[in-house]
Amino acid sequence: MGTLRILSGMRPTGKLHLGHYTGALESWVEQQNQRNEAGERVYETCFLIADYHNLTTSLETGEIYTHTLDMLIDWLAAGVDPEKSPVFRQSQVKEHTELFLLFSMLITSSRLERNPTLKDQIRDLNMESLTYGHLGYPVLQAADILLYKGNVVPVGEDQLPHVEITREIARRFNNLYQHPILGEVFPEPAPKITKFSRLPGLDGKAKMSKSLGNTILLSDSPDEIAKKMRTAVTDTKKVRKNDPGHPEVCTVYSYHEKFAPQEQLSAIEADCRSGSLGCVDCKKMCAANIAAELSPLVEKRAYYETHMELVKSILLEGEAKARAIARATMQEVRTAMKLGEITC
Amino acid sequence: MGTLRILSGMRPTGKLHLGHYTGALESWVEQQNQRNEAGERVYETCFLIADYHNLTTSLETGEIYTHTLDMLIDWLAAGVDPEKSPVFRQSQVKEHTELFLLFSMLITSSRLERNPTLKDQIRDLNMESLTYGHLGYPVLQAADILLYKGNVVPVGEDQLPHVEITREIARRFNNLYQHPILGEVFPEPAPKITKFSRLPGLDGKAKMSKSLGNTILLSDSPDEIAKKMRTAVTDTKKVRKNDPGHPEVCTVYSYHEKFAPQEQLSAIEADCRSGSLGCVDCKKMCAANIAAELSPLVEKRAYYETHMELVKSILLEGEAKARAIARATMQEVRTAMKLGEITC
Repeated sequence: MGTLRILSGMRPTGKLHLGHYTGALESWVEQQNQRNEAGERVYETCFLIADYHNLTTSLETGEIYTHTLDMLIDWLAAGVDPEKSPVFRQSQVKEHTELFLLFSMLITSSRLERNPTLKDQIRDLNMESLTYGHLGYPVLQAADILLYKGNVVPVGEDQLPHVEITREIARRFNNLYQHPILGEVFPEPAPKITKFSRLPGLDGKAKMSKSLGNTILLSDSPDEIAKKMRTAVTDTKKVRKNDPGHPEVCTVYSYHEKFAPQEQLSAIEADCRSGSLGCVDCKKMCAANIAAELSPLVEKRAYYETHMELVKSILLEGEAKARAIARATMQEVRTAMKLGEITC
Repeated sequence: MGTLRILSGMRPTGKLHLGHYTGALESWVEQQNQRNEAGERVYETCFLIADYHNLTTSLETGEIYTHTLDMLIDWLAAGVDPEKSPVFRQSQVKEHTELFLLFSMLITSSRLERNPTLKDQIRDLNMESLTYGHLGYPVLQAADILLYKGNVVPVGEDQLPHVEITREIARRFNNLYQHPILGEVFPEPAPKITKFSRLPGLDGKAKMSKSLGNTILLSDSPDEIAKKMRTAVTDTKKVRKNDPGHPEVCTVYSYHEKFAPQEQLSAIEADCRSGSLGCVDCKKMCAANIAAELSPLVEKRAYYETHMELVKSILLEGEAKARAIARATMQEVRTAMKLGEITC
């Protein structure tokens, strides 16, 4: 068994926030850099900018390129190394759509309608207004993963049904079509349940989200972080500075859990409960810790922001690499299906 | 208003039969060769081998290339001129799938479920087993047509709902995305209702169909035609040779209507009704007329069958032409949507 390949992706929604960082980006970089005892990389990592997936929820595309570049700069600043991990846009590798079409024939629409993740997504939508492409979201995701023969898919619990659909499609294809040399074209990717630490929003809502305006951006300056932190919701029962607090219900404490050094964390908890630590000072510490965590990103981001041509060329190079993998897979698919190879 | 472009297609099901000829191929060649008073072509014609559409009803792809070549030879023999009309496979022009994906976001799945043509198609199928790709059949068809900016779609009455979907998608795209120079990227194609003369099958069933084994192939020899004709169902009330017949219920007479010269047709009708013409002789005349109609195809087919490299190169050249049109359209689509152009 060779190196395992991981395909992960994000929709290009612009500058990333702390929730993206703790929820995905941190583990991407960890997977990218993980080595076994022989010093070899454990995973080949590919990072997808899922711009087509954006269309399932918004047909507004005017900002998509700007958002792509903003997001890519955050990726690079956080440690994504384009030499190790090709970064690329879905829309620039036509093979995603080819495989999407072929896979669309291998799954029933009623199977897709039963997808619980979709049901959650459209709970607030009118089912009547669900687009055909949105219904097929997991089929496009299967194409994204299998085009690169991803064998490991890091997911949260809620994404498990999508991985199951990918596995079903891979099995169905392999049963129907065999490659004369390879036999089975696709791996059946295994989900790697990842306990993503979801950061609550500054307003106390379950997660940070751009549309809720409750985020700290990876690109926020220490001053901006401190300013935003002052607005964070804490324990509502702690009204005066010396009232005892309840860290377990405090948004700021949940940030401390993620960003404070262990010994400081214990002190914060004790001092909050005793009432000796007031929210103003507590938030200052928290903002400082977050700024410290993000400080390695600052310099790298500044560099990329003044070298936009480099950022663009990183993207183009990543896309050329992705296309080479994607084309090779599609030739195998075409051979297995006897569809004829495309030579140009 | 420039030349009108027509995109027409067939699924590659192998050698064509008389039903394909009278139902489509004849009018294709007519449209291809039609000239206005100034001697200019009225239509630019593009002929699509819809191999992806095959997958909506059968996932068996082993014979698809052989069937493609068999069908193409019939097209060429019937007068399709590859210099005038590019011929190409859907599966060899990736842009079909790109546009399919983008269009999938512009229509709701409930709209597709209400498509009456689909309802007819799946009347015998279990709705549970309808694949996602089959549901999206009219979306792929819209992509096929609009990729080449077809402004005229020759259809039978039963295909009108599909054209309506294509028009809706074109309008929706044009409303959402404007090209900085062109404005609207897509024409809203007009249906051209074509009264396709549908030939009944030899067994009297409403139409010829390979799966029913009731066809006369364009490639059948005069002997084969005569032999098959002997099995044709006639007026069941005409039992003995001299019994009076009823041409209006006779399969063979419906072939005469299509293939007999006018003066002969009147005589046949009169002699059948009077009982002076027996079915054996009537069928002989019919077989001879069909063989005569098909005789110009015989020589051309024989040529192509012994020059398979030429047939293959016609296909590759057609695909190169189609790809150039398709790529130009997709660049316009990408510009209008601000998705970024693909340079490689």
